Amino acid sequence: MSTHARLAQQIRFIIEVDKLKEVFRQTLLTQSRRQENDAEHSWHLCLMVIVLAEHANSPEIDVLRVLKMLLIHDIVEIDAGDTFAYDTARMADQHEREALAADRIFGLLPADQTSEFRGLWDEFEAKETAEAKFATAIDRFQPVLQNCLTEGAAWRQHGVTSDRVIARNQHIADGAADVWTYAAQMIADAVKAGHLPA
Amino acid sequence: MSTHARLAQQIRFIIEVDKLKEVFRQTLLTQSRRQENDAEHSWHLCLMVIVLAEHANSPEIDVLRVLKMLLIHDIVEIDAGDTFAYDTARMADQHEREALAADRIFGLLPADQTSEFRGLWDEFEAKETAEAKFATAIDRFQPVLQNCLTEGAAWRQHGVTSDRVIARNQHIADGAADVWTYAAQMIADAVKAGHLPA
Repeated sequence: MSTHARLAQQIRFIIEVDKLKEVFRQTLLTQSRRQENDAEHSWHLCLMVIVLAEHANSPEIDVLRVLKMLLIHDIVEIDAGDTFAYDTARMADQHEREALAADRIFGLLPADQTSEFRGLWDEFEAKETAEAKFATAIDRFQPVLQNCLTEGAAWRQHGVTSDRVIARNQHIADGAADVWTYAAQMIADAVKAGHLPA
Repeated sequence: MSTHARLAQQIRFIIEVDKLKEVFRQTLLTQSRRQENDAEHSWHLCLMVIVLAEHANSPEIDVLRVLKMLLIHDIVEIDAGDTFAYDTARMADQHEREALAADRIFGLLPADQTSEFRGLWDEFEAKETAEAKFATAIDRFQPVLQNCLTEGAAWRQHGVTSDRVIARNQHIADGAADVWTYAAQMIADAVKAGHLPA
């Protein structure tokens, strides 16, 4: 394949993923209180990684690999849509829907990059490597932060209780124990303030 | 400083930069045609870097450093606002306004990170290292791409002509010559299609 043909194929993928800016999540922004989209969420996670990398449980973490995972982790939602973290009905077939999306969207890239990106996405989903555990910790901590800063709006709207928030987010400790200590205190404060039902 | 106090300070910065999702640019999204914000723009650039790194003029480029620069490059616009690339009046004091913003916002971090992030931003602004040249090339190419895909809406709205688009964007070649070849063809096609005045 010529350099030009390869570049043209890569740019088709880059154009396709512009759609991630139109996939909206349940989390609200702290200022305008509109729903956050997946693209700006992904940016925020990456920024958090370069600020908080020192708090990863594994000191030898490959930060570039964590960033690559988080840059692509939600791209599957262009086809599969956002699945709210506490929507157990939609979560049942979430991985299946997202795997089909990964086939289509990462398949737009040249074969070597399809393989690389699918590998990164599979690694993120499996949550086994130190990098995937830290990436997952940040992906869970950010909505806790946004929810606490918006008086628990998304939690209250969906009737989520603190035991479910703790059950889901205590896994932050698998990637970043100090961050979970901090998040647990924020969650306890949200309960005290009446922003999250006990 | 204790780990907890350091983490709390880092999180104050992470909360502050949520505001980047509310800073809107002139560029439109390809689907809804709403204005793009700086946070989702920054995500798109980082994604482009991991897809297009092989096209950097310097084969030995440090991709992690490029990503760090692009994750933080627009944070100054929280205070300084977005400056349209063809607004020569506002561009006159752009760097001065943005440097003040860098002092305040990066200053929220612990001192070692204030210094690291300010260094990355200064490096990006100076456009001298291979990493800064490639980061700048991607930062210029992305709006060309979005403008071409939206029938030149932002260019036409502001009466920008093709000679100015070429004068600004030919510097893409300093970081990624192949990407500039591709972009120059897109610009020529936009002129032919009547989306950009000659």
